[in-house]
Amino acid sequence: MKQNSVSEKVKVPLTIVKIGGGIIEDDRALKVFLTNFVAIKGAKILVHGGGKSATKLAIKLGIKTTMVAGRRVTDAEALKVITMMYAGLTNKTIVAALQKLDCNAVGLSGADGNMIQAKKRVIKDIDYGFVGDVSSVNTNLINTFLNAECTPVFCALTHDKNGQLLNTNADTIASEIAIAMGALYNTTLYYCFEKKGVLLDITDDSSVIKHIQSKNYKELLDTNAIADGMLPKLENCFYALNKNVQKVCIGDASMLLSKSVLFTTITL
Amino acid sequence: MKQNSVSEKVKVPLTIVKIGGGIIEDDRALKVFLTNFVAIKGAKILVHGGGKSATKLAIKLGIKTTMVAGRRVTDAEALKVITMMYAGLTNKTIVAALQKLDCNAVGLSGADGNMIQAKKRVIKDIDYGFVGDVSSVNTNLINTFLNAECTPVFCALTHDKNGQLLNTNADTIASEIAIAMGALYNTTLYYCFEKKGVLLDITDDSSVIKHIQSKNYKELLDTNAIADGMLPKLENCFYALNKNVQKVCIGDASMLLSKSVLFTTITL
Repeated sequence: MKQNSVSEKVKVPLTIVKIGGGIIEDDRALKVFLTNFVAIKGAKILVHGGGKSATKLAIKLGIKTTMVAGRRVTDAEALKVITMMYAGLTNKTIVAALQKLDCNAVGLSGADGNMIQAKKRVIKDIDYGFVGDVSSVNTNLINTFLNAECTPVFCALTHDKNGQLLNTNADTIASEIAIAMGALYNTTLYYCFEKKGVLLDITDDSSVIKHIQSKNYKELLDTNAIADGMLPKLENCFYALNKNVQKVCIGDASMLLSKSVLFTTITL
Repeated sequence: MKQNSVSEKVKVPLTIVKIGGGIIEDDRALKVFLTNFVAIKGAKILVHGGGKSATKLAIKLGIKTTMVAGRRVTDAEALKVITMMYAGLTNKTIVAALQKLDCNAVGLSGADGNMIQAKKRVIKDIDYGFVGDVSSVNTNLINTFLNAECTPVFCALTHDKNGQLLNTNADTIASEIAIAMGALYNTTLYYCFEKKGVLLDITDDSSVIKHIQSKNYKELLDTNAIADGMLPKLENCFYALNKNVQKVCIGDASMLLSKSVLFTTITL
């Protein structure tokens, strides 16, 4: 791969893709996704969640999972479960599958190589426990890995550089990596899930909003046209676009291969 | 000063340390070990087991653990448990602790970066299941990581490059890495556990055999002086020494810091 440097006028492209539990939990969907992911040309990074698998494991272990406003409350036991599932089973299953497809994947948490440092969230109304907000991304080491033709595969774990692992939302990890790597690369961020994009009618898979801009986003919000669960993701998208990420797209695995299929593109 | 050609270059040292379950399971012992490990100068690699923790997790999940001749029979469910514990909780706990100590640890399985490829063991008398024998080590990429001042931390998992993760003995992984990296470095291999070394009397911690050579090893075998559990480890040591590893030592964490403490050195 071509050596990248800040002084270069034209930045080379870097694709960051995040997949959610709906794909991870479905062997067939995961296989399709990984095949499409491998076909992306140039440098790429994968970020995965895995909350559904972690919840299942917690049930098996008799550990109670507490969710507040769609976010997991991560006590010490929940953190162990998450670490086993995210960094262990889910991450290594994906890495082994990518290796089969001749993609030189390297599975990472934010603690590995001090890749993603975070601060434990300050308790306000709710104590989310061992949950971290990203404070820095080790762009130099990620760049070293990319130059060695490796494909980093990040799970949704960070650390505080003081020995504590922290649970961090995978959407946020993807956007923070895209933003930080934007200093070196021309970054595109894909949020990939089981739907074809952001839907106007969640019961109709064909009701994809093809293009969301700051302006019509406000209209969509005012008319409550977008499902609540999608709002944090869209906030993440605009946050990334406002910080040097070139393009953000939301859709299913087919959007990685073809510009002609239906998916949602977000721009400022 | 005389200009050395590449072929005449003196190899720089590389230290490979393996720790077993007795240290991993004991928070205090692990802390002492990691502090001593970080103090090792120059390039270093850590390899860890974690079988005891995996067995405990399997019990909690109601999964039966079958051992034959001290080796785990790894069916599909056992492999999931091992992947969660080795690559997940154990590996990332160690990595986060090393990061706190300013050691830039990167946790890896053999699948990550295709670092350690293995072949599923052929069934003879016993079907060990998803157990792999090392076939190749990606010395180039390990070297890239070391040159980037990272410290690889390997768990006892490999893969077959065909999508299958495999359980591989951590002692073997350590010796295979030491052997492979011997082409580039002057390698020393430490097997670190809770005892002070190879003991003549397992009830007497001071009965450490300071020096084992091929010759007195045979005598020790003939007189049944060495505990059965230690024999595969010693076989690994001689195997490594016969394949270009410079030095092999067995002892507790103190041997990493001081040449004056009691431990066992193995030479040909």
